[in-house]
Amino acid sequence: MVQSRANISLDLHLKLDPRRVRESLERALRGGVADGRLAPGSALPPSRALAADLGIDRTTVTEAYAQLVAEGWLVARQGSATRVAPRPSLARAAPAERPEQVASCRYDLRAGFPDLTSFPRQEWLSAARAALADAPAETLGYGPPAGLSALREALAGYLGRARGVHARPDRVVVCAGFTAGLGLVATALRERGVRSIGVEQFGHASHRAILEAAGLKVVPLDVDDEGAVPDHLTGLGAVLLTPAHQFPLGVALSARRRAAFTAWAARTGAIVIEDDYDGEFRYDRRALGAVQALSPDQVVYAGTASKTLTPGLRLGWLVLPERLVTPVLDRQLDGHAQPAAIEQLTLAEFIDSGRYDRHIRRTRLVYRRRRDRLVTGLARRAPQLRVSGMSAGLHASVSLPNAAAEDAVVERARSRDLAIGSLGSFSAVDTPTRHGLVIGYATPPPHAYTTALARLFAALR
Amino acid sequence: MVQSRANISLDLHLKLDPRRVRESLERALRGGVADGRLAPGSALPPSRALAADLGIDRTTVTEAYAQLVAEGWLVARQGSATRVAPRPSLARAAPAERPEQVASCRYDLRAGFPDLTSFPRQEWLSAARAALADAPAETLGYGPPAGLSALREALAGYLGRARGVHARPDRVVVCAGFTAGLGLVATALRERGVRSIGVEQFGHASHRAILEAAGLKVVPLDVDDEGAVPDHLTGLGAVLLTPAHQFPLGVALSARRRAAFTAWAARTGAIVIEDDYDGEFRYDRRALGAVQALSPDQVVYAGTASKTLTPGLRLGWLVLPERLVTPVLDRQLDGHAQPAAIEQLTLAEFIDSGRYDRHIRRTRLVYRRRRDRLVTGLARRAPQLRVSGMSAGLHASVSLPNAAAEDAVVERARSRDLAIGSLGSFSAVDTPTRHGLVIGYATPPPHAYTTALARLFAALR
Repeated sequence: MVQSRANISLDLHLKLDPRRVRESLERALRGGVADGRLAPGSALPPSRALAADLGIDRTTVTEAYAQLVAEGWLVARQGSATRVAPRPSLARAAPAERPEQVASCRYDLRAGFPDLTSFPRQEWLSAARAALADAPAETLGYGPPAGLSALREALAGYLGRARGVHARPDRVVVCAGFTAGLGLVATALRERGVRSIGVEQFGHASHRAILEAAGLKVVPLDVDDEGAVPDHLTGLGAVLLTPAHQFPLGVALSARRRAAFTAWAARTGAIVIEDDYDGEFRYDRRALGAVQALSPDQVVYAGTASKTLTPGLRLGWLVLPERLVTPVLDRQLDGHAQPAAIEQLTLAEFIDSGRYDRHIRRTRLVYRRRRDRLVTGLARRAPQLRVSGMSAGLHASVSLPNAAAEDAVVERARSRDLAIGSLGSFSAVDTPTRHGLVIGYATPPPHAYTTALARLFAALR
Repeated sequence: MVQSRANISLDLHLKLDPRRVRESLERALRGGVADGRLAPGSALPPSRALAADLGIDRTTVTEAYAQLVAEGWLVARQGSATRVAPRPSLARAAPAERPEQVASCRYDLRAGFPDLTSFPRQEWLSAARAALADAPAETLGYGPPAGLSALREALAGYLGRARGVHARPDRVVVCAGFTAGLGLVATALRERGVRSIGVEQFGHASHRAILEAAGLKVVPLDVDDEGAVPDHLTGLGAVLLTPAHQFPLGVALSARRRAAFTAWAARTGAIVIEDDYDGEFRYDRRALGAVQALSPDQVVYAGTASKTLTPGLRLGWLVLPERLVTPVLDRQLDGHAQPAAIEQLTLAEFIDSGRYDRHIRRTRLVYRRRRDRLVTGLARRAPQLRVSGMSAGLHASVSLPNAAAEDAVVERARSRDLAIGSLGSFSAVDTPTRHGLVIGYATPPPHAYTTALARLFAALR
């Protein structure tokens, strides 16, 4: 008996924390059962014996046993020893098999990201402090599905002013980033009978995946120098467009195309989803206003703080045609796609205090300079290539003759520790008709931009 | 012509901001087209004439016209007047038809909420400041689908220590609240062939709705004084349980039931989802450890900051059996269910710095006192009623003889401006076998608790 007690003590490497004797005893016993050192069905030493062995109070042992009985680790029967519970064998904890993220390059010119070092941490924190100082306690609860009214009002004002959006607070739905909003809209459209949606032939594969996950058939639309081509819309119930600055080709949707898409939508009852992901960033002239303003009853306007601030905020917003407000909110009722209350309150304060506009003006200047350096550098170092699209946004694209040239440049860049995306990687079709690179000049931190560009130019020779 | 110019100026109530002449001119024209005062097809005055009329530079007018042509509001043809674009008629903006939230009562004893005034704003902000001071910029980008490693590590430590969970950081998935996590797990189970899931006969309707939205058939399980009854599990691929403190009945899942559910899961390959929504709050003794620790390969542990801090944070976490990690993360790749980076970093700091434990200890004391006041008050004022369940959590339930008695008390409470929930409102079946009230004693702010209790007692007479 002494032997068995000693064994258990030894096996469990019982190190009792003198301030938390019972807790550490329980943890040791639990661990012993969990990893199999205390076999199912085996008897534990009587509480009196174990207490004496460990030099602790007997009550501590009986309490620990009772706790573990209640939790199901041990079983106790009147008049019999406390035993380890018979239980399903635990598979040994295997090492994690999930592969690490693909090793990333030291330099990164992939598109879709702002410079994360530019996020204004101090200003954000001071806005959070100001917002929390004023916020009524009930704003911290389960919020309304459309988002907190302070933010919806701030957004309606900002979007009207900066992007020409016809926004009323009761048409604004705050969501946890663009993708969450796209998921809500896609599901609501599917439930209203939409079966197919047109997407630009080049775009984010993740957006197409969200549409497909919602049960929609995704139909690629051609894109030319006027943006998406409104030629084969028969049978579609919606289109997803990037009118201000086509992603990734960089062209703007022309005025006649804007009119064609909205007229088609009005005629057929279809919906245009306007992904205005970087509409704030135009460098050569004032940005085009949102298509939504032309036709608020046909267009879902979707915006995001991912490019203006940082994707990690997971803050986006929709401005909806009236007939979609209730269907979208019905999908939002379980709160899946709602951002945190503090983020909402902070962004509202950030906008209302003018910090948002200031930050955008500041970063617009920085990104414009980066684009200029890219364009002049390309003209000097790779004069055979031309940057296509507008002077806008956080990325530029250049044409290459074919897919083999794409692959070669991407590979040469990778061998120089530089990540960059090919146009082909954004294609919705297997054999894209255009080839090139998509250069996210906003992505690197400031200190890395010069080297990233130099490596890009070297890879382009 | 002068007349037409004057009319336009008048109709549009042109108030040109002298610092933003072009912008205000554009806004006025846009507004005129949008609300129909400038009819489709009608000609605008020549730029020279309008400029003279308004006393501004002609270039400003031509630029404004060009902008609106580019946006599709106006059309210009060589040698012809600029005209308002022909376009789909706008439905007049109707007033919002979505009804306001049902007018809520001044006093609130509904279950499922912490006291929102207890959220530690200053401590949260100082944790946010500390977290943002240290965080590398890349943590602010699109984060890993499982959540930021700082938070997964902090949670693994906390859950092992406080709830006995077998948690390794690579099995932890951070999600935007419990409901978001439940949605991820339900969808992953459905994709792995699970068709039916057992739920406790009393519980949140919203949880059942999420399971159904994921395509699972929801099968109610009986609940008695030992918690959920593991009798009719044939054909089920999973169960959703509240083992530490059944919601809303308040009983704990007994040791033999814990063993029965996990043994069934191990035998059949089924999954037990352990909703540990308020496991931190036990008042009479130390809380039972999590069922997950008994059987980490059969149990999904799900926790949340909604009760310990506030639901507005939308922060929850899953600890998954290894075979579910990849399927759940595959559902998370589009980022739908991910909380904001700053919230994640702040909670990690909040836990690691000891603020989380301190806050829980503080609120545990407060809620325990509130519960004691409820129990003693009921004994004195409504001695025919008994509080069932354990001394734990943020709510208590009392039995009533039938559904009519439930309705009568809820109605009498409402007439006293007090909101309270009936057991029937949590039932998964049409004719529940138990009746009573579910009293969320944590919900009111401190200053309102005395009055809320007094009105409850009055309604119970």
